[in-house]
Amino acid sequence: MKTAQPDVIPGNERHSAAHTGPNMKALVYHGPGKCAWEDHPRPAIQDAADAIVRITTSTICGTDLHILKGDVPTVTDGRILGHEGIGVVDAVGDRLSGFRTGDKVLISCITACAKCDFCRKGMYSHCRNGGWILGNTIDGTQAEYVRIPYADTSLHPLPPVADEEALVMLSDILPTGFECGVLNGQVKPGDTVAIVGAGPIGLATLLTVQFYSPAAIFMIDLDDNRLQVAKRFGATALVNSSDGNAVQRVMELTERNGVDVAIEAVGVPATFDICQGIIAAGGHIANIGVHGEPVQLHIEKLWDRNVTLTTRLVDTVTTPMLLRIVQSGRLQPGKLVTHRFALSDVMKAYDTFGNAAREKTLKVILKSDGVR
Amino acid sequence: MKTAQPDVIPGNERHSAAHTGPNMKALVYHGPGKCAWEDHPRPAIQDAADAIVRITTSTICGTDLHILKGDVPTVTDGRILGHEGIGVVDAVGDRLSGFRTGDKVLISCITACAKCDFCRKGMYSHCRNGGWILGNTIDGTQAEYVRIPYADTSLHPLPPVADEEALVMLSDILPTGFECGVLNGQVKPGDTVAIVGAGPIGLATLLTVQFYSPAAIFMIDLDDNRLQVAKRFGATALVNSSDGNAVQRVMELTERNGVDVAIEAVGVPATFDICQGIIAAGGHIANIGVHGEPVQLHIEKLWDRNVTLTTRLVDTVTTPMLLRIVQSGRLQPGKLVTHRFALSDVMKAYDTFGNAAREKTLKVILKSDGVR
Amino acid sequence: MKTAQPDVIPGNERHSAAHTGPNMKALVYHGPGKCAWEDHPRPAIQDAADAIVRITTSTICGTDLHILKGDVPTVTDGRILGHEGIGVVDAVGDRLSGFRTGDKVLISCITACAKCDFCRKGMYSHCRNGGWILGNTIDGTQAEYVRIPYADTSLHPLPPVADEEALVMLSDILPTGFECGVLNGQVKPGDTVAIVGAGPIGLATLLTVQFYSPAAIFMIDLDDNRLQVAKRFGATALVNSSDGNAVQRVMELTERNGVDVAIEAVGVPATFDICQGIIAAGGHIANIGVHGEPVQLHIEKLWDRNVTLTTRLVDTVTTPMLLRIVQSGRLQPGKLVTHRFALSDVMKAYDTFGNAAREKTLKVILKSDGVR
Amino acid sequence: MKTAQPDVIPGNERHSAAHTGPNMKALVYHGPGKCAWEDHPRPAIQDAADAIVRITTSTICGTDLHILKGDVPTVTDGRILGHEGIGVVDAVGDRLSGFRTGDKVLISCITACAKCDFCRKGMYSHCRNGGWILGNTIDGTQAEYVRIPYADTSLHPLPPVADEEALVMLSDILPTGFECGVLNGQVKPGDTVAIVGAGPIGLATLLTVQFYSPAAIFMIDLDDNRLQVAKRFGATALVNSSDGNAVQRVMELTERNGVDVAIEAVGVPATFDICQGIIAAGGHIANIGVHGEPVQLHIEKLWDRNVTLTTRLVDTVTTPMLLRIVQSGRLQPGKLVTHRFALSDVMKAYDTFGNAAREKTLKVILKSDGVR
Repeated sequence: MKTAQPDVIPGNERHSAAHTGPNMKALVYHGPGKCAWEDHPRPAIQDAADAIVRITTSTICGTDLHILKGDVPTVTDGRILGHEGIGVVDAVGDRLSGFRTGDKVLISCITACAKCDFCRKGMYSHCRNGGWILGNTIDGTQAEYVRIPYADTSLHPLPPVADEEALVMLSDILPTGFECGVLNGQVKPGDTVAIVGAGPIGLATLLTVQFYSPAAIFMIDLDDNRLQVAKRFGATALVNSSDGNAVQRVMELTERNGVDVAIEAVGVPATFDICQGIIAAGGHIANIGVHGEPVQLHIEKLWDRNVTLTTRLVDTVTTPMLLRIVQSGRLQPGKLVTHRFALSDVMKAYDTFGNAAREKTLKVILKSDGVR
Repeated sequence: MKTAQPDVIPGNERHSAAHTGPNMKALVYHGPGKCAWEDHPRPAIQDAADAIVRITTSTICGTDLHILKGDVPTVTDGRILGHEGIGVVDAVGDRLSGFRTGDKVLISCITACAKCDFCRKGMYSHCRNGGWILGNTIDGTQAEYVRIPYADTSLHPLPPVADEEALVMLSDILPTGFECGVLNGQVKPGDTVAIVGAGPIGLATLLTVQFYSPAAIFMIDLDDNRLQVAKRFGATALVNSSDGNAVQRVMELTERNGVDVAIEAVGVPATFDICQGIIAAGGHIANIGVHGEPVQLHIEKLWDRNVTLTTRLVDTVTTPMLLRIVQSGRLQPGKLVTHRFALSDVMKAYDTFGNAAREKTLKVILKSDGVR
Repeated sequence: MKTAQPDVIPGNERHSAAHTGPNMKALVYHGPGKCAWEDHPRPAIQDAADAIVRITTSTICGTDLHILKGDVPTVTDGRILGHEGIGVVDAVGDRLSGFRTGDKVLISCITACAKCDFCRKGMYSHCRNGGWILGNTIDGTQAEYVRIPYADTSLHPLPPVADEEALVMLSDILPTGFECGVLNGQVKPGDTVAIVGAGPIGLATLLTVQFYSPAAIFMIDLDDNRLQVAKRFGATALVNSSDGNAVQRVMELTERNGVDVAIEAVGVPATFDICQGIIAAGGHIANIGVHGEPVQLHIEKLWDRNVTLTTRLVDTVTTPMLLRIVQSGRLQPGKLVTHRFALSDVMKAYDTFGNAAREKTLKVILKSDGVR
Repeated sequence: MKTAQPDVIPGNERHSAAHTGPNMKALVYHGPGKCAWEDHPRPAIQDAADAIVRITTSTICGTDLHILKGDVPTVTDGRILGHEGIGVVDAVGDRLSGFRTGDKVLISCITACAKCDFCRKGMYSHCRNGGWILGNTIDGTQAEYVRIPYADTSLHPLPPVADEEALVMLSDILPTGFECGVLNGQVKPGDTVAIVGAGPIGLATLLTVQFYSPAAIFMIDLDDNRLQVAKRFGATALVNSSDGNAVQRVMELTERNGVDVAIEAVGVPATFDICQGIIAAGGHIANIGVHGEPVQLHIEKLWDRNVTLTTRLVDTVTTPMLLRIVQSGRLQPGKLVTHRFALSDVMKAYDTFGNAAREKTLKVILKSDGVR
C-alpha cells in the first residue's frame, strides 16, 4: 500500500527552444553509438527540493557503456549521461534544508524522495519518485552542472577539502559492492567467500567484504591482470576461469564443501553458473551483475541445499557509513583509479574505459577544468 | 554523523496578541492541575510541509494525566494537550504531496521529518526535527483543529468512512504496545510471554502479541477487573500481583524456567522487578513503561543468564502495517473503548479516565460536535 | 571445517540370511512400481544411541509416491518405506538418555546426530551422520517396528495419550511447510502471501503461515476442491491457475505491486514461474517443492528487484515449538486427514493417496492393528 | 519444555580413599585463600563420552582469582582449578567419535552435551548437563591431566603442531569477548564502540571487535599501561577514567551523540554507570563483566532512548570460527601473553597474575614440564 501520492514527477525535462539562460558543456547521448561533448543549456532549479551542483569530479560506469550501445531503452536522444560525481552546490531550491550554496557534496547514483513507502523501508532504489534516474530518465553528471532532485536526501555532505578521487567511488560502486554483494551475501567473520568478476564492481566488493573479516576470499576472473590487482587488494586465492574449470578448482580449495558466500559481479549466465556450482549447503549467492537474459537455475540440485539467492539494485543506504569508514582511513577506494582525464576529454576517457583489458583500466577519473 | 541540518524548528509557537484569525475551542494546559476547554486561536499553516487537521475523533493517554500533574516539564502554560486523533485535512502547505483538503487522516503521535539520520534508520521517535512534539512542545489534538508539521510523513490516509473509534487506537497505543513490547521482545510462535500491567497499553500489547502466536500469555496486574478484560482479549493465565507473589506464581506456571518474554507496561520499580524475577535464561525483557525513577538491576543474578533488556519510545514505523491488519479484520482495537464523550466534554472525560479503577475505564473516545 | 569425524555409519543394513530373531510385517520396496506388505525381520538395536519404536500411527508422503515410481535412486530393493510416524519405544541402546521403553514418541523425518558441524548450526537436514535417511537409505516407518538412530535427538516425547492423527503431521509436513515456506519466506504480520500448490504441504504451509498474521493469503492451485479446503483453512483469496492467468490475477489483486512472499509448494517449472511473476520488489520466494529439472530464472527482470529466493530441506528444528502450539490448541493439523486405514491395508492407502484428485485425498492415516 | 532428561550427571566426583591408579600433580583448592600444587589421583574415564586430556598448555583467568578468594560458592574444598587449556588426548570413552588418543585438542571452558534444549539452540552456557563446570563443579585444567565430559562437543581439534600460546586464548577469553561483547553488542562496520576495561577480557574484545570494522574504538580504563597496550592493539582513542570524567570525555569525542555500542568488561557499578552514561539513542550496551552486586539502572533516562542491554555467559559457539580466523593469520591472540611459567610453578604464576598492575600482567602461560 502506498502511503503517499507521487510528488510532482521530477524529470524527462527537455530544454525548450526558448531557453535563454547560460550554457555549459556536457556529454549528450544521441542514440546507439552516438554521443558528444557539446554545448547544452545549464540546468536550473525546477522544484523547491532541487539543488544545482557544479561537478568537480566524475567517473564512468560500466552501465554507461551499455547505455551507449543502446541497451538501456529508458535513455533517449538528448540525455546527458553519468550518475556518479562530486561537486559544489551552485544553487538550491527554497525547501532545501541540508545544503547551501558552496557546500562540497557527494552525489548518490540513487535519488530518494525519503517519503514514499519504499524509501521509508530503506529501498531507495525503488523510490516511487526517484531511484536510478540520473543519466537515465533525467540529465546526469558527465557535465559541468547537474540538477539533483530531492537534494536533501540524495546528496551527502563532504568537507571542503576531500580526496575526491577516492570519494567519488562512493557515488555507486562501493555501496553497490557492499549492499548487493556483502550485505545481501550476509558475510560473517571466518566465512569463505568467492567473488566472480574482478572488474571495478567486483573489486569494490573485495574491498568492502573485508569489513567482515572472512577467512578466505577467492577471486575468479578471466583476466590475469585483474586477478593480480585482486591479490594486492586482499584476495587469498585467485582462480582464472578461462579453462572452464573454476567450479572444480573452488571445490578442491574448499575440501568439496563449497563456499559460504558466492558473489556474482559480472551479469552473464556463465558466471551465474559458477556461483551455483560452488555454493555450500546453507550458503548465500548474492547477485550484483546486470543481466540481459534469463539463466538456468539448477533447482533440481539446489532445492534441498538450504541456499539463499538475492538480487538488488543498490539503495545507497550505507553511503553515510561508508563515508565514515573512508574518513577513518580503513578503506582506500582511491586505489581503484587507474586513469585520469579532464572532464572535457570525456570522449577519450570512454575509449580507455571501453578497452579495459587492453588498457588495464579499472576506474577513470574525470576532473573539471575549473569554474566557468 | 548528522546528514542534514535541523529544518526550521516547528514549534513552541504561541499565538501572538495580534491574532485576528478565527477561533476554536481547545483543552489548554495552565500549569499543574489546571486546564480548561476554552477559546483559542485556530492554527494556521506556518510551513509549506504543514497540514491543518479538523479533529473528528480524539482520545486521552496516560501521559496526558502525567502532564496535568506537572510531571512533564517540557509542557508549559498555554499548551493544547493531546497527541492522538483522527480528522479531516482542512488546509495544506504548498509542499504537501500526499494529502489534500478533505482527506480523512490518522494523526501519528510521532512527527517525522523523514530526512534526518534518525528518521532514515526508522527511529522517528528521535527525529531531529520532530519526535513526540504534539501536545508537548507544540499544540496537540484535544482541540477542534491541530497543525501537523511534516504532514506527508506524520499523517496516514484513511478511507472517507472508517471505524474511527477503532482506528484512533493506532495514533499511539497500538504501535506502542507492538513496537516497544512485541517487536522489541522478539516474540516468536510458541513462546511463553508475560505482560506486566493490564492498562490500555498492556492490553494493546496483549492484542498485538497474538500476531506472533505465542503458546501462553500471562497477564499480571493488581486489578481483577482488568485481568478479566485481559482474559476476554486472549490471555491464557491471569496473575493478580497484589499479594506480592507474582514471581513465584509465574515460576510455578513455567516449571521454574521463567518466561521467554517479559513486557513491562507500567513504569514503576515493582513491576520492573517482576520482569527481572521471571525472565528465563535467554529471554527478553521489553520495557514500555514511562519511568520516573531509577530501578535496581539485579545484574549479579542476570550477568550469566543471556538476557536482553530493551527500552523504546514508539517510532510508529509499523502504523501502515497495523492499519492493513485492522482493515483485514484480524484486529479489533475498538474493544479497548469503554466510554464516549463529546469533545466539548473533555473535562468530564479526563475525570472518567483519571478514575480508571472505579470507573472501569480503558480508553475514552472524544467525538467532535460537528463542523464549526 | 568439520569438528567431528562421521560416526559409525548407521545404515544400509540388510538383514542377513542367518537372521533368527522375530519377524514383523512391513511395506518393502522391490524396484520401480513394486512393493509389498510382507514379512520382514524385526529391527534390533545396532548402536548404543538407537531406539526401536513400535509404530502406532503412520502416514504416506508425496515423496513415497516418487520413490515407488523409481525417482529416488538412493532407495534400493528391499528397503522399508516411510519417514513419518508415532509409536512406543520398544527397546533402547545403552547410551540413550532421553527415552525409555514404553515412552510414546513422535518420529522426526530427519535423523540428527546433534554433534556434527551442520547439526550444531541447526541444519539437521545436512547432518553428516543422518539427515533424511528413514525410508531412504535405512528402513522406514511403514512397518510394525522401526530402528531410529541417534534417537535422543531424532525422537520427540509425547504424552501417553495424544491425538496421534494430528501429531503425526509433525513428523514432516508441518515443519516442512513452516520452515521451508513460512520461516524462509520471512513472513511478517500484515504481509500479502501467495502459496502456489494446495496439496498437503501447501495446506500445512497455509496453517502455519497464520502464526505470523499476514493480512492476505492467496492460494493458487488447479483443483477447485483443494482450493475450497484452503478457504476453510484460512486463505483469503483463491486463484485457480488452470487458465494460465494466475500471474495476472494476483497482480490485479495486489494493485500491480505483487506479493510480499510467494511460496512454491509443488516442484515444477510452471509453479516456479508463477512465483517469479508475482513477487513484489523486496519480496521473498520460498521454495518448498522437490524439483526434478532446472527452471528458467528471469534474472533479466529480477536483478534489480531486491528479491530473495530460498531453498531448504526441512531441518525439523521447529518441531518442539510446533508441538507446544498444537498442545496449546492454536493449531489443529488433524484437519488435514481425509482417510484412515489399518497399517496392514497400506497398499490400499497408497491407491487412495495416489489418486488424490479423484479421491479428494489430503493425508491418509495408517493405524497399527495392535501389538504383535 | 525440556526435550531430554538430564544424562548421568558428570561430576562432583571425589577420588575415593581406595584410589589405586596413578597419581599426578594438580593445583587443588582448599577453601578461601588456600590452594596447593600437590599430588592428586590422575582422572580416569567415567563415562563413554569422556576423554582424558594430558595438559600441555594452560593459563589463569580472573575468575580463578575470585574462586581463590572464596567468592564462588560452587567451588568446594578439594577441587582442581582451571577451565582453559590445550593438551593431547590420553584416553577416550567407548562412545567418542571425534577424537582419538594422541590428538592435539583445545579445551572449551564450556562443556556441552549437544542434546539438551539449551544446547540445541546454541546456548551451551546453559547446557542442562554441562555449562561452566571445569574447575568449578568438576576438576579443572591446572593439572597434568583433566577429564572432559561430552568430549566430542567440548573439545576442538588442533593440528599436531600449533601455536599453543595463541590458541589457549580460545578456551575462554576470545570467545567471551567476541560473543558477550561484540556479537551481543551487534557491532557493525562504521560504528563507534567503547570498551570499558582494558584487562585481558577487554583486550580480547578489542581484538575481535575489529572483525566488524568499527570506525572508532574508545578504550576506557584506570591503568595507563593497559591503555597503551590497547592503543597498540587498535584502539583509536584512550580514556583514563580515574578522574571521574570518562562520560564527559566520551560525549565530547562523539559530538554529544554517545557511542553506538558500549561494552562493559569489568563487572562493578562504576563501569556499568559509564556505559549507561555514554550510550547513544538506539545503542547497545553489552555486559561481559561478572557482577557481585546490583547496579542502579537509570531507566528514568533510558526508557525512551531505544537502548538494548544484554548479558551473557560465553557459549563458545564461535570457537570453530575463531580457530579458522586465527589459522588464517588475521588474529594474533598470542600478543595477550606477557608472562610464561612452568605448570609446576603455577603458584608463582598466580602471584604474577594477581598483581597485574604492578607486574603489567595480561595473560600468563603455564607450560607442562613434559610427559610423566
